[in-house]
Amino acid sequence: MTTSIILDVDTGVDDALAILTAALSPQIELVACTTTWGNVDVDTAARNTAYVLTMAGRTDVPVARGAEGPSNGAPATFSTGVHGEDGQGGQADTSFVPTLTAESAPELIIRLSHERPGELHLVAVGPLTNVADALAADPTLPERIREVTIMGGNFLAPGNITPAAEANIWHDPEAAQRVVEAGWACTFVGLDVTMRDMLEEHHLSELAAGGEIGRYCARILDAYYDFYRGETGRRCAGNHDALAVGVAAGLATATLAPVVPIEIDTTVGPNRGRTTADLRGIHNAWPVVAGARHRAVLATEPGFTERMTRLLAGA
Amino acid sequence: MTTSIILDVDTGVDDALAILTAALSPQIELVACTTTWGNVDVDTAARNTAYVLTMAGRTDVPVARGAEGPSNGAPATFSTGVHGEDGQGGQADTSFVPTLTAESAPELIIRLSHERPGELHLVAVGPLTNVADALAADPTLPERIREVTIMGGNFLAPGNITPAAEANIWHDPEAAQRVVEAGWACTFVGLDVTMRDMLEEHHLSELAAGGEIGRYCARILDAYYDFYRGETGRRCAGNHDALAVGVAAGLATATLAPVVPIEIDTTVGPNRGRTTADLRGIHNAWPVVAGARHRAVLATEPGFTERMTRLLAGA
Repeated sequence: MTTSIILDVDTGVDDALAILTAALSPQIELVACTTTWGNVDVDTAARNTAYVLTMAGRTDVPVARGAEGPSNGAPATFSTGVHGEDGQGGQADTSFVPTLTAESAPELIIRLSHERPGELHLVAVGPLTNVADALAADPTLPERIREVTIMGGNFLAPGNITPAAEANIWHDPEAAQRVVEAGWACTFVGLDVTMRDMLEEHHLSELAAGGEIGRYCARILDAYYDFYRGETGRRCAGNHDALAVGVAAGLATATLAPVVPIEIDTTVGPNRGRTTADLRGIHNAWPVVAGARHRAVLATEPGFTERMTRLLAGA
Repeated sequence: MTTSIILDVDTGVDDALAILTAALSPQIELVACTTTWGNVDVDTAARNTAYVLTMAGRTDVPVARGAEGPSNGAPATFSTGVHGEDGQGGQADTSFVPTLTAESAPELIIRLSHERPGELHLVAVGPLTNVADALAADPTLPERIREVTIMGGNFLAPGNITPAAEANIWHDPEAAQRVVEAGWACTFVGLDVTMRDMLEEHHLSELAAGGEIGRYCARILDAYYDFYRGETGRRCAGNHDALAVGVAAGLATATLAPVVPIEIDTTVGPNRGRTTADLRGIHNAWPVVAGARHRAVLATEPGFTERMTRLLAGA
């Protein structure tokens, strides 16, 4: 069983791992990468995306440029304190010139959905601006997309960029709400799980002892681990984006993923950007909730990060 | 060590248990009950409060009438679907005429705080309208109150009255935010713990086999258990308000209660009324957070509900 994925990225350290995982896993057909703003500006994201695909020998994967900032027209703010100014922890090849598609990210998503209706999994691991733009351009998109998996949100876990919100959703809550309102079922892989099956020191060592790709991953993770030391007290990292790819492709198993009502908080209050889910079913073994269609992944079987490390180190 | 408590209640089934626990525990001096709207209207709350105090032989405890509705002037909405129209699951003595203080609830709180500065624990288990009104009338109140314990909020647990919010805070978020902003430290005993050490069938049986007070508790709990069957799939009940009294008086032990920044969501969005706490310290063994002063109780040692049942059944 191969999963055919369009991967929407704001590359980013953990995005690079997700792209490489998708590019190198035999169980995944990486159909395209669409790039967006978020961790870094969209041009930096596009360059980093094309760079890691080239390193993986996957120049066949088209890379499209997408949104420059949030849907509401506010200035874009980036997470360069986490990912570095270059998005790769200071390790990017800033002289690399990416080859990008003539089509924009939303245009590419829409065309591919027409060429392969019902086949493609859309995996979005950055702010949801591109996906919302694609929906605005073609509201029939959900009819042709097989599945949507989003790295985003926090349900029973705290936020990261604010006490209440996870960074991808917080960066563009209005876009996220439009994605949630569209006529498809989204699987949210959020901080409840990405801060569990984490990247630890031994993963870094294994990557550093690997081939070119593994060593690159170890280099870009170095500063990322330092950031997480501030959050957790030890050198480690959330394996956010790759876990979303893993769940989408069945490489990671969701052991608890109730289908629940989800609404994005688009207020300007303390919960702006919170992926607000109705989790009251926790008291009653998660009964079916009428009208609910989105899945909140609350637990995954440990081991994905271990297997991903082996894949990337051995590539 | 006796804890001297002013108990602010919107009586309510679980409020009745909290009042009786405070009235009958040798470790607690119940100084006064102030009543508010919430589970029921304030007059019904005042009547039920005075009734259970009379049943416990505690007509010495003054009962004051307080707020009729939320701070923002919106119409009051009550939780009669949970507590019954009479607030006692259909078991109230509706002919009972309570003796109330001439002073309002905020006036009584302020006077007592002057008479016994630094001695009194304010335990609020309803919407925080009375407490906010007392703060508005006398902003120096926090200087004279020893401790504040609030039954309210949900931190890593889902809400109850909405997906995001616990009922007491949701009923008057503006009041709650003023209480949080005042110059005292509040301990929040919320759904993370009150939906854990729950009232189960065997507690009901023990109460029903007890004296007059135990039998009354069993009668009022009957319909309350039915409500919770809808929430949990079994007959049981959250022991919300009494647990707050228990924590305030040291009858229940908080085993995890980090001091964290807390802000009440007063927007009109999906998180209105959410007790928004910064819980990101969970990843790093709860480091000290500069400026934080409120405690979010995330775990208590089981057993309080068992001991409370024994107290009420044996009274």
